[in-house]
Parts: sequence; C-alpha cells; structure tokens
Amino acid sequence: MSKIANTNLEINKNIKARWSPRSFAEKTPSKDSLHRMLEAASWAASSYNEQPWRFILGIKGEGDSYDKVFESLNEFNQAWAKNAPVLIIIAAKDKFSHNDSENKHAMYDCGAAMANFSLQAVEEDIYIHQMAGFSPDKAKELLDIPEGYRAITVAAIGYEGNPDQLPDNYKKSELADRERKSLDEISFIGNWGNVY
Amino acid sequence: MSKIANTNLEINKNIKARWSPRSFAEKTPSKDSLHRMLEAASWAASSYNEQPWRFILGIKGEGDSYDKVFESLNEFNQAWAKNAPVLIIIAAKDKFSHNDSENKHAMYDCGAAMANFSLQAVEEDIYIHQMAGFSPDKAKELLDIPEGYRAITVAAIGYEGNPDQLPDNYKKSELADRERKSLDEISFIGNWGNVY
Repeated sequence: MSKIANTNLEINKNIKARWSPRSFAEKTPSKDSLHRMLEAASWAASSYNEQPWRFILGIKGEGDSYDKVFESLNEFNQAWAKNAPVLIIIAAKDKFSHNDSENKHAMYDCGAAMANFSLQAVEEDIYIHQMAGFSPDKAKELLDIPEGYRAITVAAIGYEGNPDQLPDNYKKSELADRERKSLDEISFIGNWGNVY
Repeated sequence: MSKIANTNLEINKNIKARWSPRSFAEKTPSKDSLHRMLEAASWAASSYNEQPWRFILGIKGEGDSYDKVFESLNEFNQAWAKNAPVLIIIAAKDKFSHNDSENKHAMYDCGAAMANFSLQAVEEDIYIHQMAGFSPDKAKELLDIPEGYRAITVAAIGYEGNPDQLPDNYKKSELADRERKSLDEISFIGNWGNVY
C-alpha cells in the first residue's frame, strides 16, 4: 500500500480533504449546517430511486437524543466519540417500496448518501467519522427503529479538535499519514489484473 | 414524495447537478479524466481503511474491453447503455485483509467510492448511470474476477447526449423531474419519527 498515493492527480479539493478525525472541538454544528448535509445526502443516486437512507440525530444539549445514540456505541468508539457534539445513526430500508422485494443495494446507496453528506460537511469545515462498531439491536430498541429498517452505521460529526485531547493509543492514528492503494492495485481494463 | 424537494437549501453545486442519464454523446472521456475519477473514488472512507473497491473498465475502441462488460448487462440496460462510451464494473472484496473476516460494510464503502467518482465526473462535465441490472456471474466469468471478490454494480459513463436518441419509453424518464423525499421523511432527532 502506497503512502499518500496518487497525489499527482488534481481532483476536487473537498474529496481529498475529507478525513475521519477522532478529536472534535466543543462547537456544535448549526441546524442549518446539519440540514445542508442531510440535503446533500438526499441527492445521492439509489436503485429505483428508493432513497433507502434514514437518519436519527443525537445532538448534545438537545434532550436525551445524544445519550441514546451514544449508548449504542461499543466501548472502543465511546472512548473518543464522546468528544463529538453530534452523532447520527444511519438506517436502511430493507425492501423496495414499489414491490416489497429485498433491496440488495440498500447499503451501497446509504454509503453513497453518506459520502455526499461528508463532502457537504467539508464545505462547512465539518468532518465526520463513521463507525461500524455499535449495536444495531440496541440502536433499534433505544431509538424505536421500526421493522423493515436496520441501523447500519453511526457517524460522529463536528469541527476538528485538538489531538492532544485523545488517549495516547488513539492520538497516534489521528496524526498518521492517510494511506491509499495505488490506482494500479484497484483499477483494470478489460480483464482483472490488466493495468489501465 | 415531493418533487424537486428541499430546493431552498444551498448545497454544493456538483452534488445537486449529479444525475443518471441514459443518453450519452459519442465523445469518449480521456484517460486523464477517468484516472481522476478513479482517484476520487480511492479517497472514500472505508471500514478499517480496507478500500474494498475494484474497478474493471470497458472502453469503446480499446480492444474487446467494452464488449465484455456490455455482455454482462441485462437487455433492458443494454438497450440504452450501448450509447455510453465507457462501462465500468464495480467489484467488492468480500473479506477484510487484516483478519480474513467478512466485511459487512464492503458494499456500503463501494457506494461511497462511487459517489466520489460521480462527483469528480461532474467536475469534468461527465455523468454516470449505475446499474444493478446485470449478471454478476457472467461478469465474473468474462472478466476473470477472482474468488473473494464479487461484481456489485455496473456504471455507464460519458458526456450528456441528446435524449432523442433514446427509445420512447426511456426518453420519458430521461426528461422527467428529479424527485426526492423531503428531509422530514428521512431525518429524525432522538427517536424515529421526531422531525428535526
């Protein structure tokens, strides 16, 4: 795996600037900012335009909304995510609305929606860190997620903070270079393994 | 479902401009453009930074690469996708490299990568239309996709074309307004159903 791969290609700045911090500042994103991020998510492509994505926000200082989402996280993630002012559960609708058959691309489409969300966040100087480490069952129970939907990820959201606030074992990864595979490793032409 | 929902929120122009056309111009995107889109895809977030995405390109005029990807499409998609100068198979690595366990978020992460790809495409005046309607088995066989990877979507890629080139039944959807659910339908705070 190459370090800071492919840097010679000039791409959209926000796509390159997006990263997943674990340290966040105390400042809470405004409702307008969060609405713009959700709006960006809503414009993602989806199979049959199903728009299978649903979002449940937990915001510090807004009732018990934050604590309910936080409780669903595993301990490893709770240790750093407690600094994030906003947590969001991403849930997917399992079946297509037009014929009630299984939507095998619901997760794929939710991933696209959250990529849009992340890029709109960068426009607002906000960064998000998505997590698979949480209990979907606990989330379902605590947040009344109905049958037919399942929680698939949780995102911590906020402005960048000081890495010194993190425990040592998290601080190291916070300051590490971002690594990506080279294009030769991930893209081919006409046949697997034929470098484009 | 509201038509052209949420238009009062000002978000990143490329996120809003992205759409999935079925008519494409004859002009083929350059290798540099395609590399920038692949590069954009490569900077998506992924669980454990696995980067489970792989891409196999089929480009008209470059050997039999195009025909091989095209053959995996179902008839409904072949009818319009034949106008696209580039087709790409998106494949996902099934297991994590660090411990060989199932990567349950591989599709989610591939969806994010293709959202990045789509937004870099808009920067280049290029549009993509992703399809679930193809045979993953045929793609696996024709393109030598190895064990441990599975084809999950195909994307048609090119510059916008004239909708008149499409058969009538496709032309109608090509010219229809884009529809999105309102934010009240997809986002809640603290509990499912609590409008934010």
